[in-house]
This record gives sequence, C-alpha cells and structure tokens, in this order.
Amino acid sequence: MSNLNSLIDGLKNLKNELYEKDFLLTWEKSLDDLKIVLGVAETLKCLRDNNISTRIFESGIGVSQFRDNSTRTRFSFSKACDLLGLYVQDLDEGKSQVAHGETVRETSNMISFLAEVIGIRDDMYIGAGNTYMREVAKSLHEGHQEGVLPERTTVVNLQCDIDHPTQSMSDLLHLKNYFGSLENLKGKKIAMTWAYSPSYGKPLSVPQGIIGLMTRFGMDVTLAHPKEYKLLPECMEVAKKNAGLSGGKFTYTESMEDAFKNADIVYPKSWASFEVMEKRTDLLKKNDNEGLKKLEKECLAQNATYKNWECDEAKMKLSKNGKALYMHCLPADITDVSCKAGEVSKSVFEKYRVETYKEAGFKPYIIAAMILTSRIKDPVKVLTMLKERNIKRILG
Amino acid sequence: MSNLNSLIDGLKNLKNELYEKDFLLTWEKSLDDLKIVLGVAETLKCLRDNNISTRIFESGIGVSQFRDNSTRTRFSFSKACDLLGLYVQDLDEGKSQVAHGETVRETSNMISFLAEVIGIRDDMYIGAGNTYMREVAKSLHEGHQEGVLPERTTVVNLQCDIDHPTQSMSDLLHLKNYFGSLENLKGKKIAMTWAYSPSYGKPLSVPQGIIGLMTRFGMDVTLAHPKEYKLLPECMEVAKKNAGLSGGKFTYTESMEDAFKNADIVYPKSWASFEVMEKRTDLLKKNDNEGLKKLEKECLAQNATYKNWECDEAKMKLSKNGKALYMHCLPADITDVSCKAGEVSKSVFEKYRVETYKEAGFKPYIIAAMILTSRIKDPVKVLTMLKERNIKRILG
Amino acid sequence: MSNLNSLIDGLKNLKNELYEKDFLLTWEKSLDDLKIVLGVAETLKCLRDNNISTRIFESGIGVSQFRDNSTRTRFSFSKACDLLGLYVQDLDEGKSQVAHGETVRETSNMISFLAEVIGIRDDMYIGAGNTYMREVAKSLHEGHQEGVLPERTTVVNLQCDIDHPTQSMSDLLHLKNYFGSLENLKGKKIAMTWAYSPSYGKPLSVPQGIIGLMTRFGMDVTLAHPKEYKLLPECMEVAKKNAGLSGGKFTYTESMEDAFKNADIVYPKSWASFEVMEKRTDLLKKNDNEGLKKLEKECLAQNATYKNWECDEAKMKLSKNGKALYMHCLPADITDVSCKAGEVSKSVFEKYRVETYKEAGFKPYIIAAMILTSRIKDPVKVLTMLKERNIKRILG
Repeated sequence: MSNLNSLIDGLKNLKNELYEKDFLLTWEKSLDDLKIVLGVAETLKCLRDNNISTRIFESGIGVSQFRDNSTRTRFSFSKACDLLGLYVQDLDEGKSQVAHGETVRETSNMISFLAEVIGIRDDMYIGAGNTYMREVAKSLHEGHQEGVLPERTTVVNLQCDIDHPTQSMSDLLHLKNYFGSLENLKGKKIAMTWAYSPSYGKPLSVPQGIIGLMTRFGMDVTLAHPKEYKLLPECMEVAKKNAGLSGGKFTYTESMEDAFKNADIVYPKSWASFEVMEKRTDLLKKNDNEGLKKLEKECLAQNATYKNWECDEAKMKLSKNGKALYMHCLPADITDVSCKAGEVSKSVFEKYRVETYKEAGFKPYIIAAMILTSRIKDPVKVLTMLKERNIKRILG
Repeated sequence: MSNLNSLIDGLKNLKNELYEKDFLLTWEKSLDDLKIVLGVAETLKCLRDNNISTRIFESGIGVSQFRDNSTRTRFSFSKACDLLGLYVQDLDEGKSQVAHGETVRETSNMISFLAEVIGIRDDMYIGAGNTYMREVAKSLHEGHQEGVLPERTTVVNLQCDIDHPTQSMSDLLHLKNYFGSLENLKGKKIAMTWAYSPSYGKPLSVPQGIIGLMTRFGMDVTLAHPKEYKLLPECMEVAKKNAGLSGGKFTYTESMEDAFKNADIVYPKSWASFEVMEKRTDLLKKNDNEGLKKLEKECLAQNATYKNWECDEAKMKLSKNGKALYMHCLPADITDVSCKAGEVSKSVFEKYRVETYKEAGFKPYIIAAMILTSRIKDPVKVLTMLKERNIKRILG
Repeated sequence: MSNLNSLIDGLKNLKNELYEKDFLLTWEKSLDDLKIVLGVAETLKCLRDNNISTRIFESGIGVSQFRDNSTRTRFSFSKACDLLGLYVQDLDEGKSQVAHGETVRETSNMISFLAEVIGIRDDMYIGAGNTYMREVAKSLHEGHQEGVLPERTTVVNLQCDIDHPTQSMSDLLHLKNYFGSLENLKGKKIAMTWAYSPSYGKPLSVPQGIIGLMTRFGMDVTLAHPKEYKLLPECMEVAKKNAGLSGGKFTYTESMEDAFKNADIVYPKSWASFEVMEKRTDLLKKNDNEGLKKLEKECLAQNATYKNWECDEAKMKLSKNGKALYMHCLPADITDVSCKAGEVSKSVFEKYRVETYKEAGFKPYIIAAMILTSRIKDPVKVLTMLKERNIKRILG
C-alpha cells in the first residue's frame, strides 16, 4: 500500500485543468494533465489490485456511441464505466431515430440527461469524426449552461480521424511501466512505422496519436512509411512542434530499416494515406460502390509493392541490442497466422505477444481516469477517500 | 433541503393505490396516485440534485421491450432504472425465440424471474399495443399468484396505441414547474392541436394522452385537428368525462387559430387519424406492401392539403399575450431545419427549444417514480430513508 | 432464517474444488462440487427471499457470448450476474472484429481484462461448441499465468454440443425441491424420452446432460428414443459408468411407453440424432444450402413417422400412480397450442405448466452459484458474511 500512497502523492503537485473538459486530442492537454490521467489510471489499478472498490458513483450513466466496429474499445469503455460505478447505455443509431433527421444538438442533449460521459468512436471519415465530437461537446456545454443538463456531460474520444487518445495514453502507460518512469523515456528512440497489410482503409489515428504524444516526453520519434502513406499534415506539424518543446526529436524516413536502427521501441502498423482516406470519404458520402471497389483494388495493389515492410527477425536485429520493445494496438496482421503476409512475422509477434496484451490491458484504466478527472474536481481527495473507505471489491 | 422535506411531506396525505399495480393509462389512476407519481419524481430529482443517492435496489432487473424504434424513451427507461439501482436487460425479439411461437404467458414469466418491472413500447398497431401490455400484466399477476415469480413484476407503458403516460406525466410535471403548482393549472387553456408534417403514421398516443390527463386538473383543453384526423372515440369520451369531473373544459375545433386564441399553452403535433391507423394495422398484418404504399401516398396527399397547420409566429400571436408556452414531445418536424415545411417554424421552435429540452428531462424521473411506487409499498418511508441515509451519489 | 443457517451448514463438510475452475460438463465435477453448486444456489435464493443483498462484487464484469439465439438463458445469465453485482457486457460477434480473423486466444484475453466470467452458448455444431469453450478457457488460463489477466476469468457453459449444465443442474435442483432431498431421488425412475416435434436440428445437450447428471444420484434413468435418434456414444458411456458408480441404473428402450411405465419423472423432448447433427455441421461449414434443405426435408419426414411419440394423458397413466412429474426445459412444442402435433398434449402440459415455470426459475441461481464458486475460494465464509452483513436488497 506504500505504492498506493506514493501514487496519490505523485498527483499532488500537478496543475489540474481536466475538470468538466472533454478529452479529444492529447495535444490539447497540458503535460500536467496527461500526467494526472496516467497517475489516476495507475492509482485505480493499484486500488483494484488491492481489492479496494473504485466505485465513485452510486448511480450514473456512461453513453457509448460506436460509429465503427469495435470489440476492444467497447469492452474497455464498459469496464472503465463499471470500475467507477456507471451503467453503460449504448446509442445504437440503427435502432434509434437519430437517422430520421434529428439534429446533433437535440440528440446530444436527449441522451445526456443524468449521463456523466459520452464515449464516441467515429473514425471512418476524414474531416468528420473529430468534428462530430466537437459538435456533440458544444451541444453538451450549451445544454449545461442553459440548465437542461444537470452536469456538464463530457466527451471522450474513443478514436476519430485525427487521434486515438485512449490508445496512445495506454501505450504511454505501458512504456512508463516497461521502462520504469516517464523520465526514463527521454531520449529513447521509438520507430512508428507503416507496415504491410493485405487490407486497406485502416485509420490514421494510431500513428498520428503516437507521434503527437510521444514527442511530448523528450523521445526520439521516428516516423517511417512509403512516400504514398502520408499522415495528416497538421499532425506532422504537431509532432514537430512538440519535439521542439520537449527536447525530443521528430524525424521522418522512407526506410523501415532506418527507423528500426537502434530503436528502443518499434510500432509497425498498417494504415491508409490521408489522401486515400479523403477519396474514400468522398466515395462513401456519394455511396459510390463502383468507385469504392476501384479505389480498394488500386490501394491493395499499391500495398502489395511494399510487402517487404514487415517487422521480421532481421529488422528486429537492427534495433537497440536487437531487443526493441515491439508494440501494437491489436489486432495485428500476423504473417502465417491471420494472413499470408502481414505487418509482423509470427516469431516476432509471439515473442512480444504477452507484452502487447499487457499494453491493451491499460486501456480500461486510462478511460476510467479520463472519466474520473472530467467529472471529479479534486481527484486526489477522492482517490484518498477510496483508499480510506477501503470497501472490498470482492467480498471475502 | 427544506424543499426536500416539503416534497416528502406533500406525499403524506395522499391515498396510495400504486403498489404492485401496472401503469398503463393515466385515466385508470386516481388523482392522488397521479400526484404521488409527480411528487416522487420531484423528490428523486431533488435528492439527485443534492448529490444524494436514490439507489433503493442493491440488485434487481428492469426489462425493456421496444417493439418500435426509440432513442429518448430507451435512454429515459435506462436512466430511471439506474437511478434506482436496477440493471436493464433488453428483450430484443429479433435475437430471442419469442418469434418462434412462444406464448406471451410463458415469455412474460421467463423474463421476469427476479425482475422488478417490464417497460414496453408497442405503438404500431391500433387495438394491439395496450392489449399486449394487459396480456403481459395478466401473465405476471398469475405467475406471482402461482408462486412462479417472487415479486409481482409490474408493467410500465412506454407508449401504446392509446396512451403515452410517461410522456404526458412528464409534460404535466413540466407544466407544474413552469406555472408553479398544479393548482395554478386550473382554468389555463391548453391547445392540443394537429400540425402538418411531411410524414404519416405517427401514433395517436400523445394527443390522446394529453387530452386524457390535462382534463383531470381543471384545465381548459382544446383539441384541434382537420376533420379527417380523428382520435379514438373512447379517448374523446374519457377527456369529456374528466373535464366534467374536474371543473375543466374539453372542446373541439377544426381551426388551429381558434385553438391558439388566448391559449396559455400550445402543443402542435402531427398524427394520423385512427381510421388510417386501423387500415394500416390491417395492411401490416397482411404484409400488404402494395396496400401500404398506396395508403401512404393517399395520406401524404391529404396531409399536404393542411400545410397551413404550422405553429408559426402569426399563430403564436393569437395566444395569451402572444406568449403561450410551446410544448412538444420531440423530435419536432421543424420547417427549414428537419424538413421543408413542418409542424413548427424555425423561429418559434428556437424560442422554446430549451423549454422543450427541459420538458423531456423530466421523463427519467417520471419513469423512476412509476417503478418506485409500483415496487415500494410506503414511498414516504423509503424516500425519508434515502434522505437520512444520505449516501453521496458522487463521492467527493 | 434457520433455513438459511442450515443451508450454509450443509456446505461445510463438502470438499470444494470449484475455485478458479470452468464449469463445462457436469461429469467433470465431483459429487461434492455438484452439491456445493446446488447448496450455494439455494442459499442465494434464500438470502434474496429474505430481502438480503447477495451482492459480492462492488464492481466487475460478466461477459456473455451467444452463438445461437437465446431468451431464457440470456436473461438467466444477466440475472445471475446482477444478483452478484456484475455488469454484463455482451460479445456480439456481428458488431465486433472477431469475424475478421482474430485468434480465439487474443479475443479471449482482450474481453477478459477485469472480467470475472464468460458465459458461452455454442450448440450449433457437433464437435465444435465444447471445443471452442475449452480453447477460450485455455487462453484465459494462460493469460492469467502470464500476468495479462489479473483474475483467472472462468468459463461457464451456457449450452454446447455435449452438455447443458446450467439446465440439468436447474432440473436437479427442481427435483431436489420437489422430492425433498437428493437422498430421496435414489431409485426414482426418470424417463428421458425423445418426443415428436415438427422441427428438426434441436441440440442433443439436454438429453445428454440429463442422463449424464441424474445417473450420479442413484436414479433409475431410462432413455427412450426411436432407433434413429441416437445420442453421442461418449455420453452414453458416461451415463452407464455413472449409474454403476452411484448404484443407479441406466437403461435404453425404443418404446416411449416402456420408459413411462412406473416412472416418477418424465422428460419428453425432441432432438435430432447426432448423425444428423454431424451431417448438418458439415453442410453448415460448406454453406451448402441445397444440402441443408434436403437434409431438413428428410429429417422432417422421418420425424413424422414418430408422431405417436407424444406425451399424452394415456402415456402419463402408465407412470407411477399416473402422476409422474412432467419436466421440460421450455419452450415445449405443445399440441394445438404452438403446433398441430408436438411433444406434449395440451392437457398434460397445462397440468404441469406451473411446475415447468418453477423448474426454469432455478436457472439464475444455478448460474450465480457457478460464478460465485469459481470466483470465491471460501463460499461458506462469504455466504455467512452476506447473512451477517444483512444489507437489504430493497430498501424499506
């Protein structure tokens, strides 16, 4: 329990600006805010590991809205809500009247009476997902101001077209645990690289989120991808600026090998270029199925010219002592397991499989921390109360 | 907290006949019962506004069954259940075996072990929705008598072909708040009027519910619709009778302007006539798609002859001091927002938008009050216990 | 409450090997383990009947995965979870990425962070359902060993191709209650017989589960079916062996009348033969719709030659004093109610209808007992704490 005390103490000198704020992009948050989210997540984990209930709500609702398929994040959101005592009500647009011409403003208010948080995944359309979240957030803000909503229900971004903050923050917590501290991440080289996959249309939010976040902590962030697989220009700018401010580095290369060279961490993952995603967005909006099929075919053909962008044993040998930490948001396209040729070879993946599972295991706590800090003004006080209240999570 | 005490005190002299009873039609309930539901709803709201937990169940299930799409009521039911500590299990007939020939009696019993309440929406078929609810309620009653069900699980009508009591009671609570008291509603003129919408097949339960409920409180209820848009004759009878007993008035006019004249409250809303709904019910039962298309076309053509039935600034000027309270169950068909021409002009709606949101915000509390009073014999005692127990809803 | 004390006392001398174990087949469990599950189920029921909360989890998740339709078991699982304080998160493969090539191992781990239990129904494919459950269980075991999962999340079989333990154990608890004790079941004759139904493809798990379980308790188990409707050979072996060990009997007959003769209990239910199920499994895997239609046609024709296998008044007269207890897992195919000719006549079913409902009512408690015993090392201690803690389930 000394660990628990030191975790809570660690939160005390940080300036907290998270209360009643949405969590949409990590680069809109101060360094202190990011550290608070990490610290609250660790404290919640420590409490649960010591069989102490983290239920801060006797009743309350968390709303989820998934505009794209999801298993991991859906479960992580549910678990985060459950950790805090919230019941999850899913907004399934197929079953609702949302499609029948309701305004976002109205729906946002209607689903938010008595709700603490809305978690939204909306990552299919470039230029749309984050915009939608901001529209919801604005509606909730106004609804609260106007006396419609008793609380300022907040929005948590469960993946959009720009960022995937619950993923990147879980990844960061994993790195903090793996290397011992945030301080230890300074100067560590992380290779965020594109990798081959026999599929197309994967969102850009993970690589964008990683380069936008890891540059905050003085890391040496190297982005690698074939020239066609560009990220959003504004995300590149963010990463550049962050690296400058934190004393880190942000470099770009068109060689996976270069990126792996001497890397402490590698994050090989497939994505589509933002230009392709923009074309796809247009075609989806027009319901142009012929166009979509044509685009897919072209993209798969282009992908296929980069089959050598696989994270295999040879490339791993280039990394620091041949032992870089392999990361992935999962599910990975594993050669000879989930496909004939993919992002990572079977042997590399299997070596790091347990680590990737642990990486994923932080997500419920990160989401819970985002909810808690948006709804609780003084997290130190409340976490201390949880510790002292000492209600067993499991009776016995 | 003095408000809390006076709310609880206000419940003390009312005769309570709600325990172990279903809530199907407001006109089956005594005036005292209606006042208890309002009072319990207000008390629950006051408790929550003071951060006091309203959790009366440590465990327990609320079952929802939506035989028609729903966002608002689905969320309201979930929130009502959560307020009281109940977990919601949805009966999705698509995923169940219900469609495979099970009797209503059996299913009703099977889903109700350990369940406190079943909330049902069944509003598509004239003559069917309320009938189905009664069949479920009868099965639950027998199941309880026979020792199958440990509790008399109760049914709450979340909208049927006849009434929409959770809506009309929320509307009443909104009026009580807006005008200060139920007493103040006496003599107030409410215009429940048909309005144009470019759609057809909207249920009759809202206008029927409004004329059936508001006539209980001495209001001057004016129903207005084009001659083709008749409500169910039995609902007209109910309203007439209620007005006689309460010292109110119930009048009918075929002019929207007449209805608005000097009105304190206007409730302009589209609906289909019961004759159309009966035809539609027949065609739906026969799966006669051709017939349905033809009926829709005819109805839309008929609708179109009444496009001037829009709640616009000119008509609002006819109301009491030009300032009648505009009400709607939402979503409204707003001209130039959700359609080219609809129930209400953009400017009128925007003026009252926040009020309509607040109106909707009462629904979770009304449903919670209906559940609480059907499951708790002595609400005054239990609400007092909640107050004195004083468990914080949010820790802090 | 003396009943409560004696129920808890009854658990004290039993050797408990249920902790951190999956519940997949009753015949993998010791007699003591089965008695513990029954006893815990009864204790939970007694606590709830005395309005004492059985919430042992302040937070926690139960995952459900239904690979076949279900109403009863879905509701029973939810209620079991709710009884213990768990929130249910359903794994809907349609909405998830499971179908996109994820390995079972990965998904099992991903959905199980912070989850106490996964309840799985997978009964469509011979040779597949139980196998899948074991694969999930193995993944969870490894995940726990590897430090990925903080708890050894356990698997509860909610029906597979081999056994239906939550059904057979509920049936056993019903029998225990009906006849007064497990001891009283010794020597009682139970006729598990095939019955005619105008449908095909019904799983074999219920008859297999019944002959596998009831032979453990010294019962005289008679299996009857037309020669074509064979059960899995390994299940026949299990029943034979069990009967030998318990001092019971296991016999097979091709005559429904023989089986009913002098029976204390009759359980007439339709099923497909395992050979048909194997053929169907192959065709389903091949998506051979023509083959499936042909198979269905053949099977229905074969079924029709056994229309006289109906549990009617005449056959009931053959049973012990003409008063055997009729059992069914529901829904039954009732002649002149749910079909023209079915498993049971209307008059027989109606006579025993309430008993079959009560039989079904044990299932939430059986599932809750399976979860509790897999997650709690010392159930006697925890049940005693629940009793002494004495928190009201409903306030009042």
